[in-house]
Amino acid sequence: MSTSTLHPAQRVLLGPGPSPVPARVLEALAKPTLGHLDPQYLEIMDRTSAMLRTVFCTENRLTLPISGTGSAGMEACVVNLVEPGDTMLVVVAGVFGGRMAEVARRAGATVHTIDVAWGETASAEQIQAALEAHPDTKLVGLVHAETSTGAHQPLVEISQVVHQANALLLVDAVTSLGGIELRVDDWQIDACYSGTQKCLSCPPGLSPVTFSPAAEAKIADRATPVQSWYLDLSLIQSYWGGPRSYHHTAPINMTYALHEALAIVLEEGLDARIARHARNHRALRAGTEALGLRYIPERSLTTLNALTVHEGVDDARVRARLLGDWGIEIGAGLGPFAGKAWRIGLMGEGSSRRSVDLVLGALETLLAEQGAPVERGAALAAAAASYDREPAEQGTA
Amino acid sequence: MSTSTLHPAQRVLLGPGPSPVPARVLEALAKPTLGHLDPQYLEIMDRTSAMLRTVFCTENRLTLPISGTGSAGMEACVVNLVEPGDTMLVVVAGVFGGRMAEVARRAGATVHTIDVAWGETASAEQIQAALEAHPDTKLVGLVHAETSTGAHQPLVEISQVVHQANALLLVDAVTSLGGIELRVDDWQIDACYSGTQKCLSCPPGLSPVTFSPAAEAKIADRATPVQSWYLDLSLIQSYWGGPRSYHHTAPINMTYALHEALAIVLEEGLDARIARHARNHRALRAGTEALGLRYIPERSLTTLNALTVHEGVDDARVRARLLGDWGIEIGAGLGPFAGKAWRIGLMGEGSSRRSVDLVLGALETLLAEQGAPVERGAALAAAAASYDREPAEQGTA
Repeated sequence: MSTSTLHPAQRVLLGPGPSPVPARVLEALAKPTLGHLDPQYLEIMDRTSAMLRTVFCTENRLTLPISGTGSAGMEACVVNLVEPGDTMLVVVAGVFGGRMAEVARRAGATVHTIDVAWGETASAEQIQAALEAHPDTKLVGLVHAETSTGAHQPLVEISQVVHQANALLLVDAVTSLGGIELRVDDWQIDACYSGTQKCLSCPPGLSPVTFSPAAEAKIADRATPVQSWYLDLSLIQSYWGGPRSYHHTAPINMTYALHEALAIVLEEGLDARIARHARNHRALRAGTEALGLRYIPERSLTTLNALTVHEGVDDARVRARLLGDWGIEIGAGLGPFAGKAWRIGLMGEGSSRRSVDLVLGALETLLAEQGAPVERGAALAAAAASYDREPAEQGTA
Repeated sequence: MSTSTLHPAQRVLLGPGPSPVPARVLEALAKPTLGHLDPQYLEIMDRTSAMLRTVFCTENRLTLPISGTGSAGMEACVVNLVEPGDTMLVVVAGVFGGRMAEVARRAGATVHTIDVAWGETASAEQIQAALEAHPDTKLVGLVHAETSTGAHQPLVEISQVVHQANALLLVDAVTSLGGIELRVDDWQIDACYSGTQKCLSCPPGLSPVTFSPAAEAKIADRATPVQSWYLDLSLIQSYWGGPRSYHHTAPINMTYALHEALAIVLEEGLDARIARHARNHRALRAGTEALGLRYIPERSLTTLNALTVHEGVDDARVRARLLGDWGIEIGAGLGPFAGKAWRIGLMGEGSSRRSVDLVLGALETLLAEQGAPVERGAALAAAAASYDREPAEQGTA
């Protein structure tokens, strides 16, 4: 007798993550489990690291997936780079900046936050001023793609300011890696973490990280042990790198899935993939604005669209109908936007004309049902006009 | 053009883990990814927790899989139960006791170790004496199934001694859960962690944990925040339990695999499964002893068999031949046993007559090749005699 009742539905995942997973990645996940010291698995690790370097646009030696989800990657970066008493500046412009500050406090850092209104981004001048106020700052952390607000934080000028102050730069790229331009070496990012379940279109479970030579040196020069044994990169790198010393049993099958997801990214090409995310975002933007929805951030991500819900529309009911009748998941608002915003992700496999038309059509129907002033047909027409203005190159979705 | 070259071989995993994964579990892993707040996923979480309670033999409310491998579960237990300055006793009788002590030191505990020779186990008298020497001890940690030595640590008397001293008991059950008797409630274990890739026959990536009401109270009464945000059980339980507050994105597909692996355990029945592990262990023991191999521990686990290699036999060459020519993985010795021992796991799906005969036959051939004094045919005959003495109940492997 089977006690199993495991029959998950086939959703269209257009929320803030996980994003839709291609069949090829799910098939990779189900390949035979190897031992974590099997020569075949060691090769798969090496190829995975190499592909991660290409996607992060880096030559950093220390580039690998942490054996946990994106928040484990955040914690790995912070606890390895911070020693008790170190001063760290964190830009807080949403949930994930706030989380980074909290993780740093728990690691014993003296944390100063640069608080930015939700939906906005920090300027290089703000960072400069904070660095002048706290000249002993060793690490500056901020979120490239704030999943809670949809805001896209520019990094190039900030990186210059941070390095002029002899600090290191830590960047959360959970919702940008593989979907938005992110050039770790060119932009002199010292540590960067992401998740597998966003623009890489792999199931959640691993967190790709990369560390610059300066960040590696900081880790090597620590006076105190990293507070987390599980996330101690000096131990983890001995398993992923040269001596192959056993540390923990890696999540073998999840590595297969990440390997395959990265291969898909490289087959499409990073530039083409970023252009695809931008094109589908602009079409969604044209369509949602035709529905009377408004973008929260001035600088929107192309991967995640945070929109204010019309006054009087029942946010939760619309999302429940989308999931129940269309099988479409979109995200709710968080924090100050709870009940007032939707977050529509077009990430990885989910960034397609099919997704854009599907979610626009369903939202139009549901908004009309709720009495919002929508003109039937206008959203899809606006999206179509956007696609006509910038046709996809042949062979891209 | 595909850049993927992901073709892992079909190994026979008879090392210290991962163990062989049934096709049904791999199929579950590849089912469609749901969102981490999808009502269908929340149901799968609830059923997974309920099945874990049955397998842990507990009614503990706080029973769930941590989003990391077994070492993440170890760290979760320690950092939630220890506050800086707390005194903790740890039995060190191999790699994993040593790891627990190190994790506790990094969490700020004052750690006293009870050092036991590798291969041996601790007695209640030793624990009692250590508790008398350190009467402020708040937590006693030890390893039920020491994967580095194959020793089986009895727990019942020790639990009484620990509770008489008003301390809490933390148990590493990575290599025992689902394969060896482990009764969390009856034995009054306060916190226990395991891994998915051992006797549950699921790929690595999650760590089932359970906490008694006393351990939950200790967590609730903490004066300081848990140093790890990712592993903070007061936050994690709000996602797994009542309010379903978002904490981190759970490893969705790995939860499917664990769900299916637990369903398989319950279909077989825990007692039948434990009896199967014991029966196959005794047959392997009869066979390996007929080959002149000797068990390292006096009290051997039934799930993992640690054996001394004959003087003059090239350990690494035998393991390489086993993997290359038979596709069989067994484990090397660790620490003082490096180069001198093999660790043969018969865990979960791998605990079968097929595994026993396969590994005995291959070892006999390889030992004979290396000039060890083996009598051809004796190992399989000894195993067969063991099976004849205790036939399997109908329907079990």
